[in-house]
Amino acid sequence: MKLVVKVTGKFFDAEGDKSQLSSSIRSLVQEGHRVALVTGGGATARRYISLGRSLNLNEASLDLLGIWVARLNAFLMAMSMPDLAYARIPESLEQFLEYWGHGKVVVVGGFQPGQSTAAVSALVAEAISADYLIMVTTVEGVFDSDPKKNPNARFLPRVTTTQLRSILESTQSVKAGTYELLDPMAMKIVERSRIRVIVTSVDKIGKLARIIKGEETASIVEPV
Amino acid sequence: MKLVVKVTGKFFDAEGDKSQLSSSIRSLVQEGHRVALVTGGGATARRYISLGRSLNLNEASLDLLGIWVARLNAFLMAMSMPDLAYARIPESLEQFLEYWGHGKVVVVGGFQPGQSTAAVSALVAEAISADYLIMVTTVEGVFDSDPKKNPNARFLPRVTTTQLRSILESTQSVKAGTYELLDPMAMKIVERSRIRVIVTSVDKIGKLARIIKGEETASIVEPV
Amino acid sequence: MKLVVKVTGKFFDAEGDKSQLSSSIRSLVQEGHRVALVTGGGATARRYISLGRSLNLNEASLDLLGIWVARLNAFLMAMSMPDLAYARIPESLEQFLEYWGHGKVVVVGGFQPGQSTAAVSALVAEAISADYLIMVTTVEGVFDSDPKKNPNARFLPRVTTTQLRSILESTQSVKAGTYELLDPMAMKIVERSRIRVIVTSVDKIGKLARIIKGEETASIVEPV
Amino acid sequence: MKLVVKVTGKFFDAEGDKSQLSSSIRSLVQEGHRVALVTGGGATARRYISLGRSLNLNEASLDLLGIWVARLNAFLMAMSMPDLAYARIPESLEQFLEYWGHGKVVVVGGFQPGQSTAAVSALVAEAISADYLIMVTTVEGVFDSDPKKNPNARFLPRVTTTQLRSILESTQSVKAGTYELLDPMAMKIVERSRIRVIVTSVDKIGKLARIIKGEETASIVEPV
Amino acid sequence: MKLVVKVTGKFFDAEGDKSQLSSSIRSLVQEGHRVALVTGGGATARRYISLGRSLNLNEASLDLLGIWVARLNAFLMAMSMPDLAYARIPESLEQFLEYWGHGKVVVVGGFQPGQSTAAVSALVAEAISADYLIMVTTVEGVFDSDPKKNPNARFLPRVTTTQLRSILESTQSVKAGTYELLDPMAMKIVERSRIRVIVTSVDKIGKLARIIKGEETASIVEPV
Amino acid sequence: MKLVVKVTGKFFDAEGDKSQLSSSIRSLVQEGHRVALVTGGGATARRYISLGRSLNLNEASLDLLGIWVARLNAFLMAMSMPDLAYARIPESLEQFLEYWGHGKVVVVGGFQPGQSTAAVSALVAEAISADYLIMVTTVEGVFDSDPKKNPNARFLPRVTTTQLRSILESTQSVKAGTYELLDPMAMKIVERSRIRVIVTSVDKIGKLARIIKGEETASIVEPV
Repeated sequence: MKLVVKVTGKFFDAEGDKSQLSSSIRSLVQEGHRVALVTGGGATARRYISLGRSLNLNEASLDLLGIWVARLNAFLMAMSMPDLAYARIPESLEQFLEYWGHGKVVVVGGFQPGQSTAAVSALVAEAISADYLIMVTTVEGVFDSDPKKNPNARFLPRVTTTQLRSILESTQSVKAGTYELLDPMAMKIVERSRIRVIVTSVDKIGKLARIIKGEETASIVEPV
Repeated sequence: MKLVVKVTGKFFDAEGDKSQLSSSIRSLVQEGHRVALVTGGGATARRYISLGRSLNLNEASLDLLGIWVARLNAFLMAMSMPDLAYARIPESLEQFLEYWGHGKVVVVGGFQPGQSTAAVSALVAEAISADYLIMVTTVEGVFDSDPKKNPNARFLPRVTTTQLRSILESTQSVKAGTYELLDPMAMKIVERSRIRVIVTSVDKIGKLARIIKGEETASIVEPV
Repeated sequence: MKLVVKVTGKFFDAEGDKSQLSSSIRSLVQEGHRVALVTGGGATARRYISLGRSLNLNEASLDLLGIWVARLNAFLMAMSMPDLAYARIPESLEQFLEYWGHGKVVVVGGFQPGQSTAAVSALVAEAISADYLIMVTTVEGVFDSDPKKNPNARFLPRVTTTQLRSILESTQSVKAGTYELLDPMAMKIVERSRIRVIVTSVDKIGKLARIIKGEETASIVEPV
Repeated sequence: MKLVVKVTGKFFDAEGDKSQLSSSIRSLVQEGHRVALVTGGGATARRYISLGRSLNLNEASLDLLGIWVARLNAFLMAMSMPDLAYARIPESLEQFLEYWGHGKVVVVGGFQPGQSTAAVSALVAEAISADYLIMVTTVEGVFDSDPKKNPNARFLPRVTTTQLRSILESTQSVKAGTYELLDPMAMKIVERSRIRVIVTSVDKIGKLARIIKGEETASIVEPV
Repeated sequence: MKLVVKVTGKFFDAEGDKSQLSSSIRSLVQEGHRVALVTGGGATARRYISLGRSLNLNEASLDLLGIWVARLNAFLMAMSMPDLAYARIPESLEQFLEYWGHGKVVVVGGFQPGQSTAAVSALVAEAISADYLIMVTTVEGVFDSDPKKNPNARFLPRVTTTQLRSILESTQSVKAGTYELLDPMAMKIVERSRIRVIVTSVDKIGKLARIIKGEETASIVEPV
Repeated sequence: MKLVVKVTGKFFDAEGDKSQLSSSIRSLVQEGHRVALVTGGGATARRYISLGRSLNLNEASLDLLGIWVARLNAFLMAMSMPDLAYARIPESLEQFLEYWGHGKVVVVGGFQPGQSTAAVSALVAEAISADYLIMVTTVEGVFDSDPKKNPNARFLPRVTTTQLRSILESTQSVKAGTYELLDPMAMKIVERSRIRVIVTSVDKIGKLARIIKGEETASIVEPV
């Protein structure tokens, strides 16, 4: 299968071992899948954006700083898999497609200002006609309300994009940004190209191979 | 001033003289402005997208075909001003910024799938902290309803983005696509970076220098 | 075998299905051949050249416009074979050689002003030491006079470059341009590198695998 | 004059205003100098190198991670001077020379593994035949012993490379790394091309224009 | 004026001072002209082509070797004018046009197999709408027969391309290659774009500014 | 195994057959090794550096001229193995790593001023975690003194980097440059990444496969 794995920038904030992610990607490749990996920027991105703001950078430049940090995380992961991963981080979707043609894991940080890492991963998934877009977030999956605020929030193993949109919009307390889920641009692409999205937690980052087999708890978002 | 001029792809559909646009850009440069030009794809883009669809291309590839045609139009205009324009069409915002630094007119077709030419021009305007984004469309400006359907549609010389959003949403018969105006992504960028947008018609493409002086009828959209 | 397939721009003028070409290339690859595809620009190229002329572009720029359109056709075909074709269209022979090294089908539009698509395909064939250069044209093969003007024109299944040159030169009514065959530059390269050329018609574009086996009528031009 | 300013990565570790550097560069440009700026990686570089080490990256890849962070700092500074600085960070000396030719401030992070930022700045200074290489470090200048350990360390306003080498070698407690001064490669280049080096402290980063006029305390290293 | 200066590779064969060429280009620039310089490969090119032939390289690769050496000569000259010349040698006409837009002297070696340096310089002259293409050859200008064989060969101060073609063709003993003059491709471009060609000798390489004023003996080839 | 073969520029000075090197690389590849080849510049490099010096080029530019010639030699060898070698010569270590990822032989000339071809080959060896760096020099291996001056010089089949450093330093008459062995930068990289170096003579260039099996006399330098 063709898989896009999108990992929250928070994964790179914590100290300690990042090899769970490399190992997990390696397992997917060994099982015969082709994998694109998209990394967020996390706290380092926010720190540089803050430095940039004190230097009066405009919004486009601030976004570019965040993209640079996301690419730094991408480069870290690429270097950790020198036999599997393409050694360059693409700067645009066209470059991504060129690199992808070489048959390797391609690791992506970001492409341009004005779009979230979620949108980038949706664009990548669309461009390669991916079977799944796996979003590795800070929550276990999709809930009917914010699990951090509502102890009775119900986990949803399967949800349509329509339902997801309605959850995100109706629940005042749940912002897309908080969830790191599908912003409008990502949603639009997922729907128009009917990309199936799996939402899982960074705690399970070492078990991606099990997740796509449905052997680990995760939510599946079906485009409608 | 720093100006972004966005020209509808329809301008390139018609046969005949395209030199009104080059001359108009030349006048702006001669008056001391710096100019970025963004071109749409028009009917040729649609024809290639249709050929692509019959070849079962995915949505990303179809968008890329449209972008190639928009870049072809961009290249045509760049070649028509060899002394003023940068000889390469940028493939990403980062490339655009590099070319822009050389002090020339930079002509842009498009950057990546999933975004309109309007969004591209908003991104460009944000990145250079443009004074105005001039959208050369098929209508004379912003109306309170679709002038093609409603003979009493009232022309609005000045409108806020909030008002514009409300017009676009409330009027069933007016789709953003029809208007070629601000889609959600363009709107988001225009608002977050407070970019002033001028909406004018392709009939006035030879009078851009007059338009920014307010000497020709046009609508101004103020971000709020 | 290593094959270069050159397709007349006219193929892209007609509406309707272009998948015959993709399928035909796919068959060649499946039979173990390596394939480079060179596409012409056709009517869209002529339209843009005409627009350029009305903008007073110089000859080099006009040729570049035609090359851009040929590359657009190349990109269309590359996107129709995402698993087989390299995702970038080379801008020079050196880029072509780099892309070719990746083992994929490389699709080429054109390289530089002042040379025909025939010359481009001869350059490509020489650079990869191709076994055959297959020219898919608007005629069935080489005739001893122009079949469109002379109902008694005799089809030549086998012809030397010397004979071909003499036919092209002696027959006033037959211009190289009309035939889309070997112009002087293409001829020079074909001869110096002893490249065998097959001339066939766009009607047989779906049967390229049969043509190289000699199972379809076509002319072979032998360099001397 | 042509100036290379090399800023220790520690400058980017501290929170707070970085505009002193941009302003200082701007003053130099306004006084008619051409400026190249070289930035170190600092604590963020060390953090990523540590993450990389836990992922078993080889030394070359670890150095590349540090270079990426230095380039991130370079990009931050370039974006803070959009009218003065080239919008791309060069990846090699050849790219640097190309960018430098455009007449702008070029900001450099690093070029390749196995060399210090000091060596990078010496290479840049040599390539442009710089009048001065200004090293903005964590100490006020060159001392005859480590001022942090020896309260009687004597400040040297003028020193030859021979003397400097002897100080660095003879004083056990003073490592080149600590000083962030001239490692052997930097020294070799400074000597062979007779580049004059000014050593000053990050506390005076806002006064670079005064430093090159000799109006602020700093050490000058003369090549011999 | 816009000038293309093409210098025979033989100029680089001799030891000794090459600064006459740099100085001459500098004078042209100081008089307000824009200059592109095209260099041949000479004996070093022939030596590498011979090494390549013993390694069984194909014709395209042999031509590329010659082009590399021509680019080496180009790079030598570019480095000798660091303040005037673009620091990169273009690999294609499109790259040339991009570099040319920066307002500097651009030095060119060659573009692709199958074409002479004369053709390259004609392409460059056409692309920038040059006022003159100055060919610095091993002969003083155009003669009505080969001056090396015929002591009565008559020098022609002014000749049309038609006359030149007839001289080159009719005189058995005069090969285009010997003359390093206009081969068919160069001739075609010169004629279609009506480029005026000045033919002069390498002995006058220090007097290019005088030559374009007509103050030195040289032949002018007028396109018809 | 992963191997880096570094060949002295002198190999390219002599006329005659260079196919021993291609054949030797081919054998290594056929035995399942991955190979990077680094070529020196030799006499042609020195000639161009001398031309450059008479043109008053600075040291950085002179080094770049030498690098260009080394790349020319690299290109010659790459073109002699079109099926095995990557068709582009990398300009930086980052480009090298990208090309290396494609699974082909990558041929390298040089990267930047201020470093020897030995240092380049050590950088390459470190970046790919090579098993051996094979230095093909003008001497048979490491001796305890200069064999050209001392007839009793003793051949050392195995030597540590510490011993080698002591030999190079203590023997006045033996300069690193003469030996074309490990200069300080190369030494530093070899030691920090514990790269095993084999030193052999250009006379055995056809027997590289035997050398790595220990079937030919050569010195091994062990990092300590």
